[in-house]
Amino acid sequence: MTRILGIDPGSRHTGYGIIEGEGRKICHLASGAINVAGALPLPKRLHLIYQQLDQLIREWHPNQVAVEAVFFAKNVKSALVLGQARGAAILAGVNAGLEVAEYSALEIKQAVVGYGRADKSQVEQMIKVLLQLRCQLNGHAADALAVAVCHLNTGLSRSRWAQATAT
Amino acid sequence: MTRILGIDPGSRHTGYGIIEGEGRKICHLASGAINVAGALPLPKRLHLIYQQLDQLIREWHPNQVAVEAVFFAKNVKSALVLGQARGAAILAGVNAGLEVAEYSALEIKQAVVGYGRADKSQVEQMIKVLLQLRCQLNGHAADALAVAVCHLNTGLSRSRWAQATAT
Repeated sequence: MTRILGIDPGSRHTGYGIIEGEGRKICHLASGAINVAGALPLPKRLHLIYQQLDQLIREWHPNQVAVEAVFFAKNVKSALVLGQARGAAILAGVNAGLEVAEYSALEIKQAVVGYGRADKSQVEQMIKVLLQLRCQLNGHAADALAVAVCHLNTGLSRSRWAQATAT
Repeated sequence: MTRILGIDPGSRHTGYGIIEGEGRKICHLASGAINVAGALPLPKRLHLIYQQLDQLIREWHPNQVAVEAVFFAKNVKSALVLGQARGAAILAGVNAGLEVAEYSALEIKQAVVGYGRADKSQVEQMIKVLLQLRCQLNGHAADALAVAVCHLNTGLSRSRWAQATAT
């Protein structure tokens, strides 16, 4: 059984999603968003993101962490701010001794919807179907769950590939 | 007596400098650079930066941390990478319960050389004079020491200002 914490980092809103899976069975455990006030000084904001992710890791004991890799941003300034939030999210994982995997938006959409150019609402819809969620899903939480599902599927195909090449 | 850890964060080379000061007396305690191989995966690199800064904090017990604030980068990609390293550096400070101050390059040059448009070699030279360093100084360490000196001077002028306005 693999328990994955997916993170969609942002300087204001960091989405998180915890899923558990084995074979084709996937189960939703928790998801939501860590919201930090933009008016707070940067060190305080990073500390809040780190602290709350650390708390989630202590509470849910995931054995792997997956974060969306970012290559683009509106501009240099927003890239710097986003980079800092990503740094905090990644550190929360590695400092807890967990492996942190990164996936591009393309890989995530491909893994979740089966189509790399799928839009946000298609990803969200598919996440709700896959995880059998009936309630409204926060956008950041949906993105985080998508990274987690992508990691689970990728791990699954990797282990299948390893099996196939071993025989 | 104020002991300051100055940090010049970078994804490959993170400069650090520890100084101690009281009034006009400044003393150099330690400085150097944390070098991480670019070939390592990003989470590992961030972990190394965090861990080594954390170790320096445990060894030297600074009571304040100062980091250079960055607003510009070559492009969005390098801004993302730099942002992540900055996030790790800032977290090492806040997670140790320390206040982390940020200064722009302009403020640092103004505080160290007295001229906001001073070049790198002038800053380095002035740092060597101020801290009475006779040995060769690593460029990243010099930048980190400059942030620390800037923080010390700013704190000094702030407390003078507070004194002046109080009387």
